[in-house]
Amino acid sequence: MLRFVITAGGTEENIDGVRKITNFSTGTLGWLMLETLLEKMREIGRADFSVDYIHGTHALKRELPNAIARQVRFLPVSDARSAYNKVFEVLKNSHIDVFIHSMAVSDFTFSYASPLANLAREIFEKTTAEGEPSLADIEGILRNPEAKFSEGEKIASSAEIVFGLKPTEKIISQIKRLSPKTYLVGFKLLRNADETELLRAARKLEQDNACDAILANDLSCISQERHEAVLLKRGEIIGSATSKEAIAEMVVKHCVHQLKINEI
Amino acid sequence: MLRFVITAGGTEENIDGVRKITNFSTGTLGWLMLETLLEKMREIGRADFSVDYIHGTHALKRELPNAIARQVRFLPVSDARSAYNKVFEVLKNSHIDVFIHSMAVSDFTFSYASPLANLAREIFEKTTAEGEPSLADIEGILRNPEAKFSEGEKIASSAEIVFGLKPTEKIISQIKRLSPKTYLVGFKLLRNADETELLRAARKLEQDNACDAILANDLSCISQERHEAVLLKRGEIIGSATSKEAIAEMVVKHCVHQLKINEI
Repeated sequence: MLRFVITAGGTEENIDGVRKITNFSTGTLGWLMLETLLEKMREIGRADFSVDYIHGTHALKRELPNAIARQVRFLPVSDARSAYNKVFEVLKNSHIDVFIHSMAVSDFTFSYASPLANLAREIFEKTTAEGEPSLADIEGILRNPEAKFSEGEKIASSAEIVFGLKPTEKIISQIKRLSPKTYLVGFKLLRNADETELLRAARKLEQDNACDAILANDLSCISQERHEAVLLKRGEIIGSATSKEAIAEMVVKHCVHQLKINEI
Repeated sequence: MLRFVITAGGTEENIDGVRKITNFSTGTLGWLMLETLLEKMREIGRADFSVDYIHGTHALKRELPNAIARQVRFLPVSDARSAYNKVFEVLKNSHIDVFIHSMAVSDFTFSYASPLANLAREIFEKTTAEGEPSLADIEGILRNPEAKFSEGEKIASSAEIVFGLKPTEKIISQIKRLSPKTYLVGFKLLRNADETELLRAARKLEQDNACDAILANDLSCISQERHEAVLLKRGEIIGSATSKEAIAEMVVKHCVHQLKINEI
C-alpha cells in the first residue's frame, strides 16, 4: 500500500469573525498534482494506494470519477493551526511514502487590533511615566497592548488601526521529524527575487526541513497563461516547467520515480 | 427605463501581492436579490430595465437564462478603492432608480508591515532622544514607520509583525450625494450585538447616509441554515425574515413597491 499526502490551496486566519487574512492561492496546482498522480497510478497499474488531500476551504476541486475518488480522502482545513493539526494527525496514524506540501500556509496569525490613537497613547504614557522607558516595555505593548478590541468584537474601523500578528508553527519543519522516511517535496514561493536569491531560499528551505526536493517559483513568473518553476534536489536544478500542468507532471513523475526505485 | 444597482460579495485588500485581507462574505444574498429582482420584473411584465451588478471577484455567480442575462451588467471589483470608483462611475453615467448596497466593503486597507522588534526600536530611539517625546511623534511612527517592508516585497514572517491599516473612503456616504433621487437600501452587519444596539447602529447608518431603508442583521443570527434580518425605515421595523431567500424577497419587494408608487 502506497500512501501519499498532497496539501493544496491556502489557509485563512480569522481576524474578528467578519474579516480574515488569506492569500491568493487558488489550489489549482495542488489539484493538478492530485489528478496527475491518480493518472500515473492508473498508468502503472497500481490500485493499492491512497491519497490524503489536505486543502484550504476554498481551494479548487473538480469532479473525480467515482472509482478513483474512493482512493482520495479530502481533508479540508481553515487556518494554519488546523492545517498543522491535520498534518500531525495524518503522519501519526500511518506511514506516508510521499508528502507534497504545496499548501500556502499562513506564516502568521492574527493577535490583536488596536485603534492607532489609543495604542500611541498607551506607549506615550508608558514612556513618559517615572523612570527610563525600556525597549522591552515598548515591545511588550506592541505585542499585547491594553488598548485593543476584545475578542469576539467586530473591529470598529472609521479610524486608523494597528494589527499585531504572531508567527504560526511551521508545518514543513515537523514532517521529517515525525516521519523521517517520507519523501518530502517542499514549495518555495518568492516575490520579485532573481534566480540566485530564489535558489538560495529554496536551498535553505530544503536544508532546514530535510526536504528531499523543492519546487521553487517566483510570483513575477506566474500569470494566467504561464507559471515558471524549477525543481531542485540538494540545491541542483533537476527540472523546469513553464505551466501549472507541466509543473504537476514534473513533480508527480519525480515522486513516483523515487518510489519505483526504492520500494516498488 | 428602470435602472437598478446591486452590490454583492466582499472586497479584498492586497497586503503584499501574496496575502490579502478579505471577509467571509460569499455574495449569496446579493445573488439571490438579483435573481429575485429579475423574477419580479418578469412577473410585472417589465422588460425596460437594467441591473448593474457590482460584485467582488469571488462572489457567488450562477447561470442566468440568456434572455435575462442581457439585462444585467456584471461589474467585478477587487478592493474597496475599485468598488468606490465603480460606484462613482455608474452613478455619474446614468440615473439609478434603486441602489441595493449589500457588498461587504472593507472599512480599512493595508498601509504597511513592520517587524515588531524594529518598530519597537524605532519608537524607543525616538522617545529616548533629546527632548520630550510627544504623542504626535509616536502616532507618526505608528502611522508611517521607517522600519517597514518595502512595497512589492513579500513580508518575511518568522517573527512577530505589526500591520498599519488606514480607513477606506465610505461608498455608502457618496451614493445620495451623487444621486439624491436614488432609492437607497443600506446593509448593517454587527457581531454579538443585542437588538437595541443593532437597531441603533442601523438607524445611525440610515441617518448618516440618507438611506431610504436598512437591512440589519447580526452574525450570531446567521448560520448555514438560518439568516435572521430585519428591514428598517426611519428607524422602524417594517419587515423581518429568517432565511436568505426570504430576505432577498423582502428587500426586492420593498424596492419594487417604492417604484410602483412613485414612478411606474
